[in-house]
Amino acid sequence: MNSSHIFEIKIQIQILMPDQSAHNALPDNPITKLFGIQYPIIQAGMIWCSGWELASAVSNAGGLGLIGSGSMYPEILREHIRKCKAATNKPFGVNVPLMYPDIDKHMDIIISEGVKIVFTSAGNPKAWTSQLKAHGITVVHVVSSVKFALKSEEAGVDAVVAEGFEAGGHNGREETTTLVLIPGVRDAVKIPVIAAGGIGSGRAMLAAMALGADGVQVGTRFALTNESSGHPAFKAMAIESTEGDTTVAIKALAPVRMLHNHFYEEISAAEKAGASVETLAAMLGKGRAKRGMFEGDLEEGELEIGQVAAYLKEIKPAQTVLNDIWNEFLAAGKDIVKKNHVFLQ
Amino acid sequence: MNSSHIFEIKIQIQILMPDQSAHNALPDNPITKLFGIQYPIIQAGMIWCSGWELASAVSNAGGLGLIGSGSMYPEILREHIRKCKAATNKPFGVNVPLMYPDIDKHMDIIISEGVKIVFTSAGNPKAWTSQLKAHGITVVHVVSSVKFALKSEEAGVDAVVAEGFEAGGHNGREETTTLVLIPGVRDAVKIPVIAAGGIGSGRAMLAAMALGADGVQVGTRFALTNESSGHPAFKAMAIESTEGDTTVAIKALAPVRMLHNHFYEEISAAEKAGASVETLAAMLGKGRAKRGMFEGDLEEGELEIGQVAAYLKEIKPAQTVLNDIWNEFLAAGKDIVKKNHVFLQ
Repeated sequence: MNSSHIFEIKIQIQILMPDQSAHNALPDNPITKLFGIQYPIIQAGMIWCSGWELASAVSNAGGLGLIGSGSMYPEILREHIRKCKAATNKPFGVNVPLMYPDIDKHMDIIISEGVKIVFTSAGNPKAWTSQLKAHGITVVHVVSSVKFALKSEEAGVDAVVAEGFEAGGHNGREETTTLVLIPGVRDAVKIPVIAAGGIGSGRAMLAAMALGADGVQVGTRFALTNESSGHPAFKAMAIESTEGDTTVAIKALAPVRMLHNHFYEEISAAEKAGASVETLAAMLGKGRAKRGMFEGDLEEGELEIGQVAAYLKEIKPAQTVLNDIWNEFLAAGKDIVKKNHVFLQ
Repeated sequence: MNSSHIFEIKIQIQILMPDQSAHNALPDNPITKLFGIQYPIIQAGMIWCSGWELASAVSNAGGLGLIGSGSMYPEILREHIRKCKAATNKPFGVNVPLMYPDIDKHMDIIISEGVKIVFTSAGNPKAWTSQLKAHGITVVHVVSSVKFALKSEEAGVDAVVAEGFEAGGHNGREETTTLVLIPGVRDAVKIPVIAAGGIGSGRAMLAAMALGADGVQVGTRFALTNESSGHPAFKAMAIESTEGDTTVAIKALAPVRMLHNHFYEEISAAEKAGASVETLAAMLGKGRAKRGMFEGDLEEGELEIGQVAAYLKEIKPAQTVLNDIWNEFLAAGKDIVKKNHVFLQ
């Protein structure tokens, strides 16, 4: 090689890439950072479906699992928290509907068991936020309007879940859909925004991020997994359902999205015929959701599920669902960049 | 520089970029190609709002303008088509609700005036598609379900508009939202899909594309432009409206999303109290929408508008709106790529 003019030229082109070895798939994402998780995907804390088994499976897979305390007596909640701690060393949380009667006992257990993340819903965000935060708990409140997103931010929550009309179960009176709600909430608050309602795929996750959300909360698709404690007959009926098979009903009491069955037909006919709130409350009675979702009474139970169930076709393990959503998200993201080179200019 | 070892190294890196001089902003997009337009943005053909003035303004700005024939007598439609042809040499179309009584006369005029693009809605896609296509007309049908998207494809339409629950005016009985509907329709049909309902910004446009749509149809935001023939008082009321101020009402007759006012309160109260279909039809009477949207009777008229009106703040020229949506779309696209480098791997 004495006098020849050969040089070794080494050109390094660095395209910004996240560290593949890191556990956080989107290191700059406010939601993965806030909770210390790998993917900005949260499993909704749903009554009768999300006990420790589902929550720990989602957390172990790199999302955030939530125990749904709304269908649990206080000591049952304690049991689920302890089992969840034993089943995962990853972050998990508890969802607490604030209107439930045993709320004080629930919060005592959450604090004494050292739960680090609490999602509150169906109530005033000012009621518990400071107390929970004083114990070092990360607090997120679920809202269905810009008005309540602002109230939540003012109450000091760390993030909001903005949930649209397509969601299963309890639903906002404004009926604002996720597509319309998210940009409104995004523009109104500075804290991270998690989109919920209709997020049953990675494409919907990408859509939510396009609207300005930092992460997503997925209910229905996780309710229809092996680890969901919903009754197999309920899960099968939801999978077999098609377009228009869920409706937000009992609006005079509290709007709830549910599958059509005999109970739905009966209470809707009564509401349509002008029944009083008292009559409707008596028809609903106690334990309707348990009867349907947990005990599998498909005719007389209340079967809460989101609109997107109409397009879901299979019960899978929670980890598979989480991986599917993430891979669909990546594929949809790559596809939209490919179709819109204008984004790279 | 005689004996020094300096070499000039020229490296060309070509990133795929569309031809900036072309009129088509997304040359590979099925919607810009189908209609021969610059942006995959279609202005919905709305009653009382979209005459020749709005349609030609949108077409001149590079979108696709549609004349809404649903509120026009046949000869008025002819006048609007002629004025539109005089006002633009770009492609434009006519929206025809198939349930209207003078449908034969409307179609005769459309064919004899040489209109090249027809959007049909509210009816059976088989009724007119082959006849229109035999005259060389591009036909698009508006649907609110996968079921009707498949029927439309089978009928031979060139594309479908899939419209969600958040849309203003006539609405599907399934109440499926745009976020849930679009992926379902995308997976079911091979023809291009245009998303509608809740698309009031470039972020929502990006979300629709993420869900699998090829383009978007925008109603409310174009109804609230200078060129819209809606009454100024109606437009002002829509701009001032907030969350929860529209509802899909008169479900027993035909579901319609409208602003809350005295007429809405009265007919909703009657429906809630169990009024018969005949009573509701009598209360609605004839010309309610004209009275509200065109004549500006804000109390007794029917004021059809989409949910997204709650978040719109200004009446602007149609061209500005189209440019805003496109620029928001580009900014949102660049932002999502920046936040998700995983899409570039």
